[in-house]
Amino acid sequence: MHDPVRMDAYRTAIDENKDNFLGKVVLDVGCGTGVLSIMAARAGARKVYAVETNAARYARKLVGAHGLEDVVTVLECCVEEADLPEKVDIIVSDFMGHFLLQESMIDNVILARDKFLKSTGAIYPSHCKMFLAAASSSRHGESRVEAHHESLEEFDEVKDYMFNECEIDLTCLSDVYKDEARELALHSSCSVHLEANELLGPPVAVKEIDLLTATHDDVKGVSQSFCIDLDPSMDKEKRRNFDLWVGWFAVQFNGSPDNPSLVQVECDTGPYNDETHWSHEGFIVHPPIDLTGASKVQGQIEMTRKKANWRLYDVKISHRACSGEKSGEEVSKTYYLK
Amino acid sequence: MHDPVRMDAYRTAIDENKDNFLGKVVLDVGCGTGVLSIMAARAGARKVYAVETNAARYARKLVGAHGLEDVVTVLECCVEEADLPEKVDIIVSDFMGHFLLQESMIDNVILARDKFLKSTGAIYPSHCKMFLAAASSSRHGESRVEAHHESLEEFDEVKDYMFNECEIDLTCLSDVYKDEARELALHSSCSVHLEANELLGPPVAVKEIDLLTATHDDVKGVSQSFCIDLDPSMDKEKRRNFDLWVGWFAVQFNGSPDNPSLVQVECDTGPYNDETHWSHEGFIVHPPIDLTGASKVQGQIEMTRKKANWRLYDVKISHRACSGEKSGEEVSKTYYLK
Repeated sequence: MHDPVRMDAYRTAIDENKDNFLGKVVLDVGCGTGVLSIMAARAGARKVYAVETNAARYARKLVGAHGLEDVVTVLECCVEEADLPEKVDIIVSDFMGHFLLQESMIDNVILARDKFLKSTGAIYPSHCKMFLAAASSSRHGESRVEAHHESLEEFDEVKDYMFNECEIDLTCLSDVYKDEARELALHSSCSVHLEANELLGPPVAVKEIDLLTATHDDVKGVSQSFCIDLDPSMDKEKRRNFDLWVGWFAVQFNGSPDNPSLVQVECDTGPYNDETHWSHEGFIVHPPIDLTGASKVQGQIEMTRKKANWRLYDVKISHRACSGEKSGEEVSKTYYLK
Repeated sequence: MHDPVRMDAYRTAIDENKDNFLGKVVLDVGCGTGVLSIMAARAGARKVYAVETNAARYARKLVGAHGLEDVVTVLECCVEEADLPEKVDIIVSDFMGHFLLQESMIDNVILARDKFLKSTGAIYPSHCKMFLAAASSSRHGESRVEAHHESLEEFDEVKDYMFNECEIDLTCLSDVYKDEARELALHSSCSVHLEANELLGPPVAVKEIDLLTATHDDVKGVSQSFCIDLDPSMDKEKRRNFDLWVGWFAVQFNGSPDNPSLVQVECDTGPYNDETHWSHEGFIVHPPIDLTGASKVQGQIEMTRKKANWRLYDVKISHRACSGEKSGEEVSKTYYLK
């Protein structure tokens, strides 16, 4: 998908730090069509190993079309199976999923680092941050709630029909159906593209990852308390209608302590910046909360991998509105990240 | 999903043939919430075995709520694993998928028949027919073609960006991308709900299945030549724009030779009838074909299971327009049923 924000970040991070690539050995984890590998080779890398499963043949084609087959070797395998003849100086990877971790390849990057990166090596990008913000976005919140009500109405329609036409009473399944419908509509996250003016206050960082040192355990999830300072100048109507938590991420290209980037680049996928192909992850607050009179929202986010499928997450957000020393009732909800 | 057409068919087929259910043993294959089992029990069945994997606990609940737990036994297993203490007189099942076979449970019904049905037994429904029709439906055809063009334009946009900003030339991947995009947009079937006035002539039956005698091989696919007589009174504009093949199915509840239904019921999901939750399966004809001057369309449909996943199908449709003894060029295309 076309995403100039992402591409500009990688291109600038590599092009503006050519000194760090000159004569180096690079590993591209999940190289796709090989674009980052080509950039690394052109920046002066002595050797690039491009590891890819699905698109390896396209990567080979593109590398060949640019006359770089002597520098870039495409390996059609997953990184666990990759066998490189040497350690590498730099890992490059476009591994990030929505809200960073959703279906991301971050584990593969850590695995590749432990297996192949020299102790002085660098990872591009080097750091990740996950952000959470409170928002008022009736266009997203209300449409979910409406869809939920429609599905409940549809059940009632079926129930009436079955009772009147077939003398079968579905009442005993009402609760089960309603719970499942609620789960689907209100406890699943939704992909949104938020506008900055929908935020009720500045975002908070709920996770920071240094890819040079993070362990697999570190990227398993999020567990962080937070405090959001509400913007006092916020539109009153919006403040009365806090209906969405929203999460996104940013990555930084800082190089490594031994080989810092001369030009540091950041790719922030949040609503203050140009839209990217990564969506913002929305978590519906229903019923909406009136934050009139509150000055902040204190809370806790717990994001954990599902046991049944470690690529899927549950996200529990607990929060209460506060004003001075008074604090409101705690609201807690677990969402399925999808 | 609410579907009175389906429910009316099953209800009428069971209620109006109570004599065939009285004192009988019934097997409900994939009973869902157990509605058909309850109907069979109420029609006088001595015993109903309701086999279900996912929704078994809901079926038990609904059966209990109607005081039928002594008659209906819900077995939480798939039919392959089911172990019944006796043979059954009747199998009931709501097994049909879109275009009958798509993700259907027809194999389970055949398996259940071979394992459990008495030689004099009946299956409800007893017969299936698959229909194919030629249609002119610009609302479906054009939107697909437009989406395809948009995806090609998006690729060109990425290509220009990558060339101008990153000096990477994606030309060598153009054909691959375009082929994949075409495959996705024009060679995948689409779910539609056609109106009868969009048909260019009466549908033809391309498969008939007698569930009492059909083998697993018989329901593996379709291989049938056909001839569609074009409706001479058809709107000229539509006739100039044949852009869609469309498939659907009907089932009949005829009982068995030994226990024929007194009242025969048909459930036809085609565009001449009220809409059901089963969609019509559309196969785009692109570019559209001008049938002006043609009196019929002769063709051949081959529907085969994919080797990689036997629940998925490839559908090859070859056809030529004919007028008297003259016949046009043959057009042939293979679609992925999705």
